[in-house]
Parts: sequence; C-alpha cells; structure tokens
Amino acid sequence: MCIVFGGGIRVAELNLLQEKILSDGVIRPGNVLKVDSFLNHQIDVPFISELGKEFKKLFGDRKVDKILTIEASGIGIACLTAVYFGVPVVFAKKSAGSNMDKEMFATEVMSYTHNRKNHVVVSKKYLKPGEHILIMDDFLANGCAVSGLLDLVKQAGGIVEGIGICIEKGFQGGGDALREAGYDVRSLAVIEKMDAETGVITFR
Amino acid sequence: MCIVFGGGIRVAELNLLQEKILSDGVIRPGNVLKVDSFLNHQIDVPFISELGKEFKKLFGDRKVDKILTIEASGIGIACLTAVYFGVPVVFAKKSAGSNMDKEMFATEVMSYTHNRKNHVVVSKKYLKPGEHILIMDDFLANGCAVSGLLDLVKQAGGIVEGIGICIEKGFQGGGDALREAGYDVRSLAVIEKMDAETGVITFR
Repeated sequence: MCIVFGGGIRVAELNLLQEKILSDGVIRPGNVLKVDSFLNHQIDVPFISELGKEFKKLFGDRKVDKILTIEASGIGIACLTAVYFGVPVVFAKKSAGSNMDKEMFATEVMSYTHNRKNHVVVSKKYLKPGEHILIMDDFLANGCAVSGLLDLVKQAGGIVEGIGICIEKGFQGGGDALREAGYDVRSLAVIEKMDAETGVITFR
Repeated sequence: MCIVFGGGIRVAELNLLQEKILSDGVIRPGNVLKVDSFLNHQIDVPFISELGKEFKKLFGDRKVDKILTIEASGIGIACLTAVYFGVPVVFAKKSAGSNMDKEMFATEVMSYTHNRKNHVVVSKKYLKPGEHILIMDDFLANGCAVSGLLDLVKQAGGIVEGIGICIEKGFQGGGDALREAGYDVRSLAVIEKMDAETGVITFR
C-alpha cells in the first residue's frame, strides 16, 4: 500500500500523476519505482494525454519548435504532448557503436538501469541552429539522459526552452542541479523519498 | 526525385502517406527507404495523428482492447492511433539477455537492419488471455517483427484483431504471407518496387 506524507502530514491536494503513482506504482528495493503499468511499458494513452495537456499549460507561453526526447520510454509522453503543441518530436537513438558519423550529433549517456554507457545520436537534419527545443522524458533521476540531450541541442546551436519530466526522483539531485544551472525544469511529480518496506512515498 | 507509376500509368489518387513518401522519403541502395524525417527519428506528430485517424477508420469496427507494438519506432504511431481508440499501448522491449524471466513472455526477432537477433519481451501483466489486440508497426518487410508480436499474443492467449502498418515493402512478401495465414493486414502504403538509381517508387 502506498500513502503519501508531506512533512508528516498527509497532503490532500495531489495532481493526476501523483494520484496515479500512489494507486498503480510499485516500489522496489534500491529506490526503484515501477510505473510500467501506465508509463513505460504499457502506456495508458488516455491518461498520458492528460499529462500532455498539463505540459502544454506549463510551457504554453514558450516558443516551442520541436520536442526532443530519447528512445524508448520518452517517445510516448513526447508524442502525446506534441499533439497539443502541434510540433514534431525528435527522439535521440541509442547506438552500441561509437563511430563518429558526420551526419549525426553524438553524446554519451550513462544508464544506471542497465549499467552501461550508451552512445546517443541525433541526425543533424533534425536539430538546427536557432530552433526552440522542449526536452522531455518519463523519468529524471541523476540527470544523465537530460544532460545528454542538452549536449545535443548545444552542439546543434538550438535554444532550450524548458525540460518537462513526468517523474523526478528529487532525492537523486539531477533536477535541482539543472535548475541551479538555469534550466526551467518542470516535473509533474517530484519524489522526495520512498520506502520499499513501508510503501510510503513522499512527494515534494 | 520520386515519381509513382502503377502498371506504367501515373496513379492520380494517392493517400496522405503515399504523398508524404514521395515528397519526403529518400531511397537508398539495398531497398532502403528513409522516412526518418517524419516517421521513425523525427516524428511529424500532426501528420502521424492523421494516420492514426486513418487506422481508426480501417479497424473501427473491430473490438480493440489494446494496441501492441515494438520499441522504438512503433511507439509513436501506436500512441497516436490509440488516442482515437481510447485504449492503452503496450510496447514489446528488445533485450540483449536471453534469460527466461517467469514474469515475461519472450520471443526472438531477427533484425535485418542491425543484423542481429533481438530477444523481445512483454510483461505477462500487460497481455492477458482473451484480450483483443491490434498489432501496429511503422514498417513491414519480411514480417519478422510482426511474427514475433503474434507469437507473444499467442502465448498470452489473446485475440489478434488486425495488423496495422504504415509502410509495407510488398516485394519482400511478409505482408502477403500474413494475409495468407488469415490475418487482417492493412498497410497505408504498400511499395511494390523502388529504384535507388531512378528514384521511382511504385505503389501497389
């Protein structure tokens, strides 16, 4: 069972995603939160579309030419948000090879889930100088994936308008480091801590 | 330049996707059709949403509980179609390991693009007996990926209502083999042949 405490007091006002995490998320040892019933294996499309609307509200005042994400689990939320912006999605591809293709921007992203370094690439045709980019992903923990995407936008000479995240693991610090660096990071749910034994999730 | 011939005569009535392939697709030697400007690297979300509507028309009379696809390039079209069906998407995951997880249905899919066999898995939680499944993918060539997805549905005891494909390479025979086996395969564009030298694409 999951319940939520904010500073010891149950927080009454939860948003859509926080409610969903409490009802459908499963905490596993090692600070793992399984949300594969609705976000990153099975995708609850009607629900994730509502999150897309939410991101449109959060970043609606920004100029967004394109949404950039990374395969595979960012693609769903990125597409279902792009519907409301009326813009394309570009997804960075993970590649085992490390060959430098002249047609590609490339960066390295450490994956702690799979304990390996991924070579991540985007075609130079789909990130251009001066483009206004919204970066999106399903999860933000230590921030490795987002940092890789930022690096790709920087190489292309694009402008990062914001970073939209479904679930941020606040206790891993990646989001705060990005905020301190000046990025507009908006996470629909920031987990302050979670306890696999008691099943308690604390949102920021 | 791409032009289209049907039996030597230019076909006047092209659908949305066929038009898009002719305007934005690039033929490469070895029967490779690059559509990464709108379908499988950059995703032209407003356009792909129109294809989603098209699939809803094609399969709208079927009972569809869930759309099943495979990461990564099937996720966009699957999600943008699921919006019109109001159902979840499940995407099968490629996994390097071959360990048999009791919680997963697993199958093998040959990838000719990457010249390797992928171990492909779906959690048993997200494919259930009696569920009515629409299988979708961006491309259908020899049919290996779709056959893998069919195998997963069969293991789960689900019912395949249809197979929705954006681009079928008709000359590779995978689609026709599936039709002969009794599946309702609908492809928005079936390429009968294409020629990298002349740039001519012939639709069925």
